[in-house]
Amino acid sequence: MNPQGKLILLPNFLHEEGVDLLKSMPSCLSNVVGSLDGVVCESEKGARLFLKCFTLKDGLTFRNIPLKLLNEHTESKEQIRELLEPIRKGEVWGVLSDAGMPCLADPGSSLVDAANQENLSVEVYMGPTSIILALLLSGFSAQSFSFHGYLPRDVPLLKKRFLELKLMCQKSHQTQVFIEAPYRNDKTLEILLESLDPFFRVAIAVDLGGKDQKVIVKTVAALRKEKSQLNINKRPAVFLFSC
Amino acid sequence: MNPQGKLILLPNFLHEEGVDLLKSMPSCLSNVVGSLDGVVCESEKGARLFLKCFTLKDGLTFRNIPLKLLNEHTESKEQIRELLEPIRKGEVWGVLSDAGMPCLADPGSSLVDAANQENLSVEVYMGPTSIILALLLSGFSAQSFSFHGYLPRDVPLLKKRFLELKLMCQKSHQTQVFIEAPYRNDKTLEILLESLDPFFRVAIAVDLGGKDQKVIVKTVAALRKEKSQLNINKRPAVFLFSC
Repeated sequence: MNPQGKLILLPNFLHEEGVDLLKSMPSCLSNVVGSLDGVVCESEKGARLFLKCFTLKDGLTFRNIPLKLLNEHTESKEQIRELLEPIRKGEVWGVLSDAGMPCLADPGSSLVDAANQENLSVEVYMGPTSIILALLLSGFSAQSFSFHGYLPRDVPLLKKRFLELKLMCQKSHQTQVFIEAPYRNDKTLEILLESLDPFFRVAIAVDLGGKDQKVIVKTVAALRKEKSQLNINKRPAVFLFSC
Repeated sequence: MNPQGKLILLPNFLHEEGVDLLKSMPSCLSNVVGSLDGVVCESEKGARLFLKCFTLKDGLTFRNIPLKLLNEHTESKEQIRELLEPIRKGEVWGVLSDAGMPCLADPGSSLVDAANQENLSVEVYMGPTSIILALLLSGFSAQSFSFHGYLPRDVPLLKKRFLELKLMCQKSHQTQVFIEAPYRNDKTLEILLESLDPFFRVAIAVDLGGKDQKVIVKTVAALRKEKSQLNINKRPAVFLFSC
């Protein structure tokens, strides 16, 4: 093992159309990206769009820099350990998801876990992540919160899950956070509003990091009246609720 | 209400001794801090140490920039609404906690909530936060996780709480995250290791952002043997566990 090898978790842009994409990113990002020998990424397209914004190490461009995929198809521990081979040899590789931070509701953790088990060096540079931005902008308590990723697609299962989360929220007073595939936002909000009591408060953060960023914070009672005018469907969204 | 007023949540340094304090911060941070008319802060000392690193707006220095406190003693809604008075008049104020991001296990959410209710503009620039750094560096799943802030100090209550979290973890497979006052780290770890089954995995991230940053990831069985050699007491720590 060459001790100079390193895995570096990097923030990808939240939104392609973000105004001044780099201003919210860590100030050392250009230097760090310029030191990479390769990138483990969720998708080639997402990685190359990001890498295009930087000057890479001599001889490398966003077209020819080595990329290796880590996504829902990277299943076996063997495949994951294989991704670490360049690090063992002393190379510096980035990890990129398609938006925001790797690992957070995205691939990455299994790779960090494997790197930890081999005592390989792992670094993180934090940038904006939609989950945390939504939590901070909602004004809901962030002393204690629970993030559930994607909830079940099946409607009866989703209803059951919302009832569980509602009870958890009432018992623990933890802010509840989840995400949804954009085309299901309207349907999911409808079921959420049926599942919660009128006094619960819901926040919906859409297009975070984009020019149309919007954070709606209202009681369930108010949202039941206004839900048809929210215009959230097909826009990337984070949902939160609190009581 | 003057629409130019704005509340901006800013990251404070995680660690005073951090090498290259600014490199992990958003690249626009100097410009943003240079535009502030005042700062709502958790403590004067924490805010002035931060502000000292920047060039402020004409006439202002880290010694004379207006500061208003927001902490555990800011209790009434009236006090919180009062903090927004300059924003209503069109001023731009920052919000700073003593380390990391406001709101996250720190004061801030009640102020954002009040600002949202008056439709005042709120922005966030993300920097490193110890909770998220610890989660990413642990390699534990971040598809779903639960952050509990500080747990009870009372030992019987803490034991009860650990048993609840253990059951939640087994049922939901959510990564569990909490923080502790540094001088209680050893005692809390001891009780945690008694409460969990040997196969659970525990991560302890200490001194994040500092030169002695360390992330320990081991099974409960291994930690029971090695706990006396961990050297975590009196160091800022984030604890995580997973099964």
